[in-house]
Amino acid sequence: MNVMTPVKRARPDEATLAALTGELTGRYGNRVVTSLAVRQQHGHTTTWIENQVPDIVVMPQTTEEVAEIVRLCAARRVPVIPFGTGTSLEGHLNAPFGGVSVDLSLMKRLVAVHPEDLDCVVEPGITRKELNEQLRDTGLFFPIDPGADASLGGMAATRASGTNAVRYGTMKDNVLALTVVTPSGDIIRTGSRARKSSAGYDLTRLFVGAEGTLGILTEITLKLHGIPEAVSAGIVSFASVKSACDAVIQTIQSGLPVARIEFLDEVQVRGLNAYSKLTLPESPLLLFEFHGTEAGVVEQAERFGEIAAENGGGNFEWATKAEDRSRLWQARHDAYWASLGMRPGARGVASDVCVPISRLAECLADTKRDIAESGLIAPIAGHVGDGNFHVMPLVMMDDPAEVRRAEDFMHRLVERALAMEGTCTGEHGVGQGKMKYLEDEHGAGALAVMRSLKRALDPDDIMNPGKILPA
Amino acid sequence: MNVMTPVKRARPDEATLAALTGELTGRYGNRVVTSLAVRQQHGHTTTWIENQVPDIVVMPQTTEEVAEIVRLCAARRVPVIPFGTGTSLEGHLNAPFGGVSVDLSLMKRLVAVHPEDLDCVVEPGITRKELNEQLRDTGLFFPIDPGADASLGGMAATRASGTNAVRYGTMKDNVLALTVVTPSGDIIRTGSRARKSSAGYDLTRLFVGAEGTLGILTEITLKLHGIPEAVSAGIVSFASVKSACDAVIQTIQSGLPVARIEFLDEVQVRGLNAYSKLTLPESPLLLFEFHGTEAGVVEQAERFGEIAAENGGGNFEWATKAEDRSRLWQARHDAYWASLGMRPGARGVASDVCVPISRLAECLADTKRDIAESGLIAPIAGHVGDGNFHVMPLVMMDDPAEVRRAEDFMHRLVERALAMEGTCTGEHGVGQGKMKYLEDEHGAGALAVMRSLKRALDPDDIMNPGKILPA
Repeated sequence: MNVMTPVKRARPDEATLAALTGELTGRYGNRVVTSLAVRQQHGHTTTWIENQVPDIVVMPQTTEEVAEIVRLCAARRVPVIPFGTGTSLEGHLNAPFGGVSVDLSLMKRLVAVHPEDLDCVVEPGITRKELNEQLRDTGLFFPIDPGADASLGGMAATRASGTNAVRYGTMKDNVLALTVVTPSGDIIRTGSRARKSSAGYDLTRLFVGAEGTLGILTEITLKLHGIPEAVSAGIVSFASVKSACDAVIQTIQSGLPVARIEFLDEVQVRGLNAYSKLTLPESPLLLFEFHGTEAGVVEQAERFGEIAAENGGGNFEWATKAEDRSRLWQARHDAYWASLGMRPGARGVASDVCVPISRLAECLADTKRDIAESGLIAPIAGHVGDGNFHVMPLVMMDDPAEVRRAEDFMHRLVERALAMEGTCTGEHGVGQGKMKYLEDEHGAGALAVMRSLKRALDPDDIMNPGKILPA
Repeated sequence: MNVMTPVKRARPDEATLAALTGELTGRYGNRVVTSLAVRQQHGHTTTWIENQVPDIVVMPQTTEEVAEIVRLCAARRVPVIPFGTGTSLEGHLNAPFGGVSVDLSLMKRLVAVHPEDLDCVVEPGITRKELNEQLRDTGLFFPIDPGADASLGGMAATRASGTNAVRYGTMKDNVLALTVVTPSGDIIRTGSRARKSSAGYDLTRLFVGAEGTLGILTEITLKLHGIPEAVSAGIVSFASVKSACDAVIQTIQSGLPVARIEFLDEVQVRGLNAYSKLTLPESPLLLFEFHGTEAGVVEQAERFGEIAAENGGGNFEWATKAEDRSRLWQARHDAYWASLGMRPGARGVASDVCVPISRLAECLADTKRDIAESGLIAPIAGHVGDGNFHVMPLVMMDDPAEVRRAEDFMHRLVERALAMEGTCTGEHGVGQGKMKYLEDEHGAGALAVMRSLKRALDPDDIMNPGKILPA
């Protein structure tokens, strides 16, 4: 095994940057930006991690332009950081060693739709809402829904998932193939449009979740799904976190094809009620949704109702109208902002551990006890059908003692998930925030393999350096 | 990008082999075998490719023993070839440079079952039938079914799939985590038991489908599924290949959750009738199966019936009894042997291209025309819900002209699939047989990335050398 020597690096020097800026501007004109405000927007994300700005922002319009930009940077060993919409939560977009932020927001074409094959080809800058708007007439949709209106490139790069993953899988399961610009500026394809293949190493899955550290995704072939004929959705409240979890576990075990099953703790519900002007019962809640035929969703919802009742669930509140459903899920998606609204001035420190579902009730109970003992305000919301949940302490960053308590809590949260055979991040990715847990989770041997892969594909460490792999 | 220099290699010399045999025998006694008959069994597989025997066969009982064997081989740069049940079709198990066949058939424990998490942990030598036998009392099953009673290790290594993939996915989708012995003899874990994770590079998917060229899988964490409450299955015949394909396409597009939808051409049906003593109508057939609730499968089968009728399908023949279904699917699984029985003395030259489903009818029609024009006998059977089908020319290997015609036909078959945005292998893997198509399918750039990965993890090229990546 090749063991990677951490690259010692400084930010590129002034002369290098001036020459690079000149070359880029000569080619791309006003699509090259060096103003501080724009650079700050490209380092900044919805995260608690300090903003580390890139030196240059460039906005390519084609795969060939991306390849050219990478070659220009590679020739000078200048870092390259791919940028989608900036909704990353773990500092993926920061530029700790400076370099060029490659903003892909101009590359947002829906390149092709193949309705008969249930797939489409997109550029990385298109967002999930834009994609679904454009797909509407086809009767198909792209189900992965991380809440934020993220770009498909960013979603693929972080192996995103969200509320629908329990039924439709994650980005890993819904990317068929990629066009990638490699760290040397070559353009490769990682797969065909066949639904399955055993032809060689699975490069698609290697780049999905690599967070731009192995290359830049410039075209993505996605699986699509038929818009369900019928949808049933609603809310049911529980007296305790444990009984809500037990209902989830039983639902999953029974094989009910639930499309979404979301948990909100009573703290999160209070936040949503205030922010979204709702009147949800302020107790542990499950939000659920079934997709299928008219007869199918009725049958499924009835079974779920029985399971909820067996576990002490309160009455269902159905969301039969499409508007009510939209409102419900919009509120769920606004959980991040609703939480911030609960404590004005506080920053939200998001996390997203994921455990085997059999450990979920225990993990949530221990976490809630820990929150109370730590004196924190930390709403919980989760894609509990996958065993994945979010805890977001609301922290006054100017109170060092509170910051320390929150940090200690977050550390225990991850260690607890790992001790339960879980993962430090279900869907947000590693970025800068979770690097310190990678060895605990995977072991030194697996981490060494990851380093070997990085070194093999990016020997000069120019692609999004300082992310995923601890130095 | 590091470009790999093809390793020039001879078989290990006599002194090296004698020393290695001595060391292995000292440790593992009669679990080390060097008799020619046993070595031939370990090179030989159900394939048309010439048998290239390993020098030594060793049967480890634990992950630690596998690691020790790999370290002993690595110290001498002796090739290591993992072996499961020997059902490979593309020469994966051959030893073109000699070396040690690591026969994992003694490692067949079901290590753990977690019914509440719908997962289990197995050793690589357990076969899919053995696994499902042992799972029976849990109400769960492992759905991937490549026909042969293959080992789970082999299935993971070739990214296998089979009749159920249209509903349950392939091995890529059903392996949660692996324990792997790397080419340096380290033992790593590639994932947790969390249902999803964004924590670093997807090592699991890198080793799944790597055909033992990057390491040996010694423990596999698998997703399980609930045994369906109800199953409906049957057969429907069509006047033409095109109308059968059109029915499949419409079924998939409509989102009907078909569990299996298999195509047999009239030649294959004749073979099955003779071999399995059936009376299937000798025309293009679809075999189908739905899994779900009692009400669900009735609704689904009715819809499928409408679609089949719209496309000129004949009457359904239902297989309502479990015995009838078993007989039907057993016959389907026996297609390989049934085909061989159609032309005694012939060898079956199996292939398994996969195309986007919109191209399936055209691809099958062109292929059947090509078979006729080539004067070959070549039954077709396919997992057509995925766009994947098998063609197996039955070739008299002592007739050089016929062998040449078959080779030319197989070449056109793959080129046709690639031209239709498909893949040279949907599920059999590359092995030795499909190496020559890898560059056509993936392009030189992607192939260079694959070579970089191989070189990074296995710089001395000891793990199953001469497979996947052309020299």
